[in-house]
Amino acid sequence: MRVEGKHYHTVWLDGKNVKMINQPMLPFRFEIVTMKTHIETAEAIKEMVVRGAGAIGAAAGYGVAQAALDAPKESFKRNIGEAVEHIKNTRPTAQDLFHFTDAVSKAALGVEDVEEGRRKAVETATAMAMDQATMGEKIGEFGDELIKDGAKILTHCNAGWLAFVDWGSALAPVYKAKRNGKNVFVWVDETRPRLQGARLTAWELANEQIPHSIIVDNAAGYYMQNGEVDLCIVGADRVASNGDIANKIGTYEKAVVAKENGIPFYVAVPLSTIDLSIKSGKEIPIEERSEEEVLYARGESEKERSLIERLRIANWKSTAKNPAFDVTPAKYIAGIITSKGIIKPNKEEIAGLF
Amino acid sequence: MRVEGKHYHTVWLDGKNVKMINQPMLPFRFEIVTMKTHIETAEAIKEMVVRGAGAIGAAAGYGVAQAALDAPKESFKRNIGEAVEHIKNTRPTAQDLFHFTDAVSKAALGVEDVEEGRRKAVETATAMAMDQATMGEKIGEFGDELIKDGAKILTHCNAGWLAFVDWGSALAPVYKAKRNGKNVFVWVDETRPRLQGARLTAWELANEQIPHSIIVDNAAGYYMQNGEVDLCIVGADRVASNGDIANKIGTYEKAVVAKENGIPFYVAVPLSTIDLSIKSGKEIPIEERSEEEVLYARGESEKERSLIERLRIANWKSTAKNPAFDVTPAKYIAGIITSKGIIKPNKEEIAGLF
Repeated sequence: MRVEGKHYHTVWLDGKNVKMINQPMLPFRFEIVTMKTHIETAEAIKEMVVRGAGAIGAAAGYGVAQAALDAPKESFKRNIGEAVEHIKNTRPTAQDLFHFTDAVSKAALGVEDVEEGRRKAVETATAMAMDQATMGEKIGEFGDELIKDGAKILTHCNAGWLAFVDWGSALAPVYKAKRNGKNVFVWVDETRPRLQGARLTAWELANEQIPHSIIVDNAAGYYMQNGEVDLCIVGADRVASNGDIANKIGTYEKAVVAKENGIPFYVAVPLSTIDLSIKSGKEIPIEERSEEEVLYARGESEKERSLIERLRIANWKSTAKNPAFDVTPAKYIAGIITSKGIIKPNKEEIAGLF
Repeated sequence: MRVEGKHYHTVWLDGKNVKMINQPMLPFRFEIVTMKTHIETAEAIKEMVVRGAGAIGAAAGYGVAQAALDAPKESFKRNIGEAVEHIKNTRPTAQDLFHFTDAVSKAALGVEDVEEGRRKAVETATAMAMDQATMGEKIGEFGDELIKDGAKILTHCNAGWLAFVDWGSALAPVYKAKRNGKNVFVWVDETRPRLQGARLTAWELANEQIPHSIIVDNAAGYYMQNGEVDLCIVGADRVASNGDIANKIGTYEKAVVAKENGIPFYVAVPLSTIDLSIKSGKEIPIEERSEEEVLYARGESEKERSLIERLRIANWKSTAKNPAFDVTPAKYIAGIITSKGIIKPNKEEIAGLF
């Protein structure tokens, strides 16, 4: 998607360098950082310079390609094996990361000639990243069918192109609708505590010149109740085989209130997010994160525009709880938008995708 | 209630001075400010040094008493009339403010002797403030009956003693339960955008040594869904004659999700909050406030503890919408806790209170 008129991916390979958008600095500073070795790329994944399952996967694939380019002939196989292990250890629960690193190392080691192996690694990492972008665009095409001209769409958190290589999941239908000439408007839940809506989704939409308003998470229900929301689209971190989904904290509340107001609530995901090994949302563990995300706010100083700092916004003597995700049962979900079409959130239709 | 072990009201008369807790500085600094004349008191109301309908009313009453103490014999009546007008103009929609100023000026002017008028003004302002505290305590006593030992209670925004002279509305039952020896735990919605939960409710509860956790507004549904909330109690800015209520933005979402999970949702209010002239919530106008409350966060610097500043937390090129209140229809409300008992939110039971 576009940043000040120019097309970018979140992460790409430039010769032997991995380049990526420095996401923790967004929306305050747009900065491309260069990772010269797979060790630096692994560090960037670990430190969340790149975030979002899809973008992490692509960065990891490029990291293995870097290792293949750097490894000397005599220790090619051993060095690639070590690089894969090193990269996998950065975010040990990220499914896409395993998928990308395994595929790229297999390509590198699947041929006799080392030069050919290097070429295959680069080709595979690049093709997989492009393929992910294409799948995002497909999600966009199917989702676009749900969007009428003039629609007002509510989204929560950031499931835009920043979380993938390009296009994204929940925002891809919005981008397609806009490019197909429809007028669309997006209500952007700010998404406390980490404010991915106010920071990242709003930044993406502004760059694509899509009209939007940031609202506090508390205000979503108000606009639903007052007929100002035509449909909701969110992403997901995991989809269970029965159609329950886990997504950013607050998704459950929005889904319940949407249903109460007769507003269709859609979840947009690549197929890799669907976990057939999980029977229902009850099996999805919910990560509890640091209370500091709740007790402090992070942002850019008004006085000194380049200064990014944090403020205590809560009573000093109080503590906080910070569950990062919640589970939305399938009964609140109107449909799941995938790269293979829109399905109902049930066992049969989900199994039918594979 | 207590501040570091000592009992305080939010506002009181000390000789010819009105003293009040400087609420915009809470929870970062506990500061008592002194208003030497009714002009200074009016300024404090306007600048929201004192906030919450009940506390504003009491401050206004004391302001009129100050005017009576200061007015010379020869222009006593005229000066009091001018003071009432001046104070009323500070927050022109605050119902309690009119009620208090009118009653105190009537008392001052209802007797022949000016000295006697001064005495009556002070007596009336003080008695009305004390009466409000007593009504809060009564709300607490009735509400306490709903609270079982070990209960986990969710509240939204601040309807504690800081919004009144003492006790409060939504938090009064919590304070009574605690004093009656029950174990209670409070989930404190931080309440974006102005964070009255994280700042004020958490500060009140910490001072009363009541166990609590601050959560982002998004997490309330998660705890409801997981059986961690036994009941919800919130305040209200207005109650319509059919039992619909207007309260801080986000209240509607919490009420819908509570109902979906079979959790009783109560609204606690003094009788002065009930507006019989309004048929339903649809007639209550919703104030839209500055988008800056959404786009910035205000808090205390980590580096320099006395520095209270604000940070941009959202994309610079995006705008925001900021409705301050929402309407919760009566069907989501289990009961209204008043100083005369707990009633069902319907026309008959509401009319029966008067």
